[in-house]
Amino acid sequence: MGCGSNSKSREALSSRTLVRVGSGLVQEMAHSEVSTPIILVNFKCYLEATGKRAVRLAKYAEEASRKFGVTVAVAPQVADIRLVSEQTGAPVFAQHVDAIRPGSHTGHVLPESVLEAGASGFLVNHSERRLQASVIEDILSRARELKLTTVVCANTSGIAAAVSSLEPDMIAVEPPELIGSGVAVSKARPEVVTDTVSKIRRINQDVIILCGAGITSGEDVKAALALGTEGVLVASGIVKAKDQAAAINDLAAACR
Amino acid sequence: MGCGSNSKSREALSSRTLVRVGSGLVQEMAHSEVSTPIILVNFKCYLEATGKRAVRLAKYAEEASRKFGVTVAVAPQVADIRLVSEQTGAPVFAQHVDAIRPGSHTGHVLPESVLEAGASGFLVNHSERRLQASVIEDILSRARELKLTTVVCANTSGIAAAVSSLEPDMIAVEPPELIGSGVAVSKARPEVVTDTVSKIRRINQDVIILCGAGITSGEDVKAALALGTEGVLVASGIVKAKDQAAAINDLAAACR
Amino acid sequence: MGCGSNSKSREALSSRTLVRVGSGLVQEMAHSEVSTPIILVNFKCYLEATGKRAVRLAKYAEEASRKFGVTVAVAPQVADIRLVSEQTGAPVFAQHVDAIRPGSHTGHVLPESVLEAGASGFLVNHSERRLQASVIEDILSRARELKLTTVVCANTSGIAAAVSSLEPDMIAVEPPELIGSGVAVSKARPEVVTDTVSKIRRINQDVIILCGAGITSGEDVKAALALGTEGVLVASGIVKAKDQAAAINDLAAACR
Amino acid sequence: MGCGSNSKSREALSSRTLVRVGSGLVQEMAHSEVSTPIILVNFKCYLEATGKRAVRLAKYAEEASRKFGVTVAVAPQVADIRLVSEQTGAPVFAQHVDAIRPGSHTGHVLPESVLEAGASGFLVNHSERRLQASVIEDILSRARELKLTTVVCANTSGIAAAVSSLEPDMIAVEPPELIGSGVAVSKARPEVVTDTVSKIRRINQDVIILCGAGITSGEDVKAALALGTEGVLVASGIVKAKDQAAAINDLAAACR
Repeated sequence: MGCGSNSKSREALSSRTLVRVGSGLVQEMAHSEVSTPIILVNFKCYLEATGKRAVRLAKYAEEASRKFGVTVAVAPQVADIRLVSEQTGAPVFAQHVDAIRPGSHTGHVLPESVLEAGASGFLVNHSERRLQASVIEDILSRARELKLTTVVCANTSGIAAAVSSLEPDMIAVEPPELIGSGVAVSKARPEVVTDTVSKIRRINQDVIILCGAGITSGEDVKAALALGTEGVLVASGIVKAKDQAAAINDLAAACR
Repeated sequence: MGCGSNSKSREALSSRTLVRVGSGLVQEMAHSEVSTPIILVNFKCYLEATGKRAVRLAKYAEEASRKFGVTVAVAPQVADIRLVSEQTGAPVFAQHVDAIRPGSHTGHVLPESVLEAGASGFLVNHSERRLQASVIEDILSRARELKLTTVVCANTSGIAAAVSSLEPDMIAVEPPELIGSGVAVSKARPEVVTDTVSKIRRINQDVIILCGAGITSGEDVKAALALGTEGVLVASGIVKAKDQAAAINDLAAACR
Repeated sequence: MGCGSNSKSREALSSRTLVRVGSGLVQEMAHSEVSTPIILVNFKCYLEATGKRAVRLAKYAEEASRKFGVTVAVAPQVADIRLVSEQTGAPVFAQHVDAIRPGSHTGHVLPESVLEAGASGFLVNHSERRLQASVIEDILSRARELKLTTVVCANTSGIAAAVSSLEPDMIAVEPPELIGSGVAVSKARPEVVTDTVSKIRRINQDVIILCGAGITSGEDVKAALALGTEGVLVASGIVKAKDQAAAINDLAAACR
Repeated sequence: MGCGSNSKSREALSSRTLVRVGSGLVQEMAHSEVSTPIILVNFKCYLEATGKRAVRLAKYAEEASRKFGVTVAVAPQVADIRLVSEQTGAPVFAQHVDAIRPGSHTGHVLPESVLEAGASGFLVNHSERRLQASVIEDILSRARELKLTTVVCANTSGIAAAVSSLEPDMIAVEPPELIGSGVAVSKARPEVVTDTVSKIRRINQDVIILCGAGITSGEDVKAALALGTEGVLVASGIVKAKDQAAAINDLAAACR
């Protein structure tokens, strides 16, 4: 199955208007479209993807996207969202936002602040920043209000199924023991991926399923897509690569 | 006692080189000096101080600083640090950073990221974002490494004393029940302020003491300085004012 | 529909052997059976249900259970589990346990410790002690291992649905705004209850559904059962009642 | 310096009435005295110190105390406090309590509940259960109200100094990297202990200082006392010993 052929999920995407159309509450707008297959690069707190280096990496993402006709989105640190968003065309996701409304919340990340800075959406519940179940629901509700695209991470197929009934736009399944391992879940544990896809689909037919943890090569991406996912969430495999541009091109090419 | 006469703390400040001189780890540098008396405006997550409105408010701070010869620093949201830092001359503080080193920390705030974005320092342990005691120590250690100026908030005189032995650059005492109340701690509870100053000074002679909670007028600022503090931490009193510029000028004028 | 006639859920209960049969890992055993309809009394941290008063209240529960032929279980504080378990015949639930295995976890609640103290099971994820989604899954896994009965609280129908795919034994739905209000969710917001039941049943046909928040009278219980739930979770309505015994009898009688 | 000769701290102890004399709020009373030198055995969540095995271990503590004339206190899990307290004469400490008052706090540990169950006091802020600075202050305030003896753990000399201005009854310094290592801080890093003692004494002359992490032998205890501490906090060194009674006697003998 080629990546481009998954028309159902594409329709699903457009029917849920993942193209962000701005908000009366804020004054800026992102213009990036999100379609599947998607490669989402999580910059984490790596220095190799901080500040100016975040911009450089996002430009590689943008180039790979154009070259191979696949969405390559980036998730830089909050301090870098505006810079990356202004200087590149890559869709930008926050790595986390808080389930708050504007007000007295010193030290938190207001969804409106990342939206105005140019983010198209955000990840939440990554294994490195897990959330209470009720907070995930609250933050998805805030995202709908602001038309921000949501990616909820799940550490197991059980959590993926649980989360799927909260109706995020995307779910990224990442067994934490494979994160940063260089061993791709799609190759080392294909049954985790197929099990997850099947558990999610019983509950939610529309959510876009991403596969994460240990993805470093185009082969890993192909394996992930063949198992029924519509994209990958990658981090160190790209950010820590000696040649970030080559690494990102390798993944994007695999989606052609 | 006039605000400008507190030469001891000023010497303390310069001896601790609060003027940030950059870091080999990152490529950007902030150029702002921090001296006492200081007015530090916490933007919290107010929409009136988000994005473009954060820049506007920081410009008012910069103007008041120039006009009245007093430091007026700002603490915008993380997503706005770079924008505020690039477009204004006000010293910029993050409202919170995490006690982490560069690496796999999805969704956290890396001190290096706010430094490179232009921050001179950061607040931590605000009543709306309290930290474990050990985390405060760790984050102060990271700040010293990066030459970032630190403001640790304390909700009581006891916590202020405890924190003072961890040797932050500044301590801001804010009884949480007065935060956002419009009732200034320096006027409603002067004994809290003098008690705090006295408890801190038994342990730490150098730390700069700020007074927070309920500050809205120049009178409140004068009262705070007369009680032995060297500045104020304000939020809603400025951010939510009908005329932010007038409100900030009123406070700055009181420090002359 | 009378409470006693819900034979489907009773079968479901017995097929899942909610009667705890002990564990090789620990030496004590609880002997109480749990069957529907069930009234579960959460003692919270009320002094009226601490220590000796916890025993007294649990005895009222036991008497009501015998008198009206309905399960009346109790959830005392951890420090009181053994006392209540030894001195009464009421099934005992912990109010929270941690998702840990035996080892270096100072200050946490080990599931084995409450099992050996006589607990039949535990509540988790109460609105006053919310858990990360992944922690709920982990703690349910520990419970299966130890044959402890599980009640997962959900603050909304969405969370109830999400949790239902993790397959706890029971789900208790409690809109937090009605907790302690004296306004029963089953009467004030019947649509919340029916919506929750319907969302859960799409995903999980077996889980026992309890209705919580604001329950104080037999009328509230009847309303809850009529809406398709199989029991109630109550706290202040019983614990804070002038006559605890009368209050508990009123609820139990409503289940006949 | 012999252990028994530290009369100053003993006076300090009695002047602060560490002998708990009950409380009008609760109906039970502990009768154990706490005097220095003190050995405090943290049972953590080890199965070897859960339930009946907690009682057995506490009896060894009681016997060692009688035999060698030294306080040997125990910190079992919350579920075991009453059992240990009723069946042995060892002073009992909770491993953690929450900074709450009686009320709606499902799943938390109410200080009154452990007091009524027979605890003489509690540990807080262990490296495995760290607390916010403000919570430590709140919980110490609750302890004073209930006449519970407090031991605040500190992971560094800096945190020990910070905590000492909050005036707990005891501070236990435990470098987390040595916890469970079998390498005693008092022998491997004597300078950490003397540095801690000196930093604490500048701020607080009365607090009893315990030395923790890696203590397994009488030699370790002697080293700790020689460095100016008045007792030790031990866990795996006793709980995981093949012969718990022998291990505890070895430590107690070293205090003679």
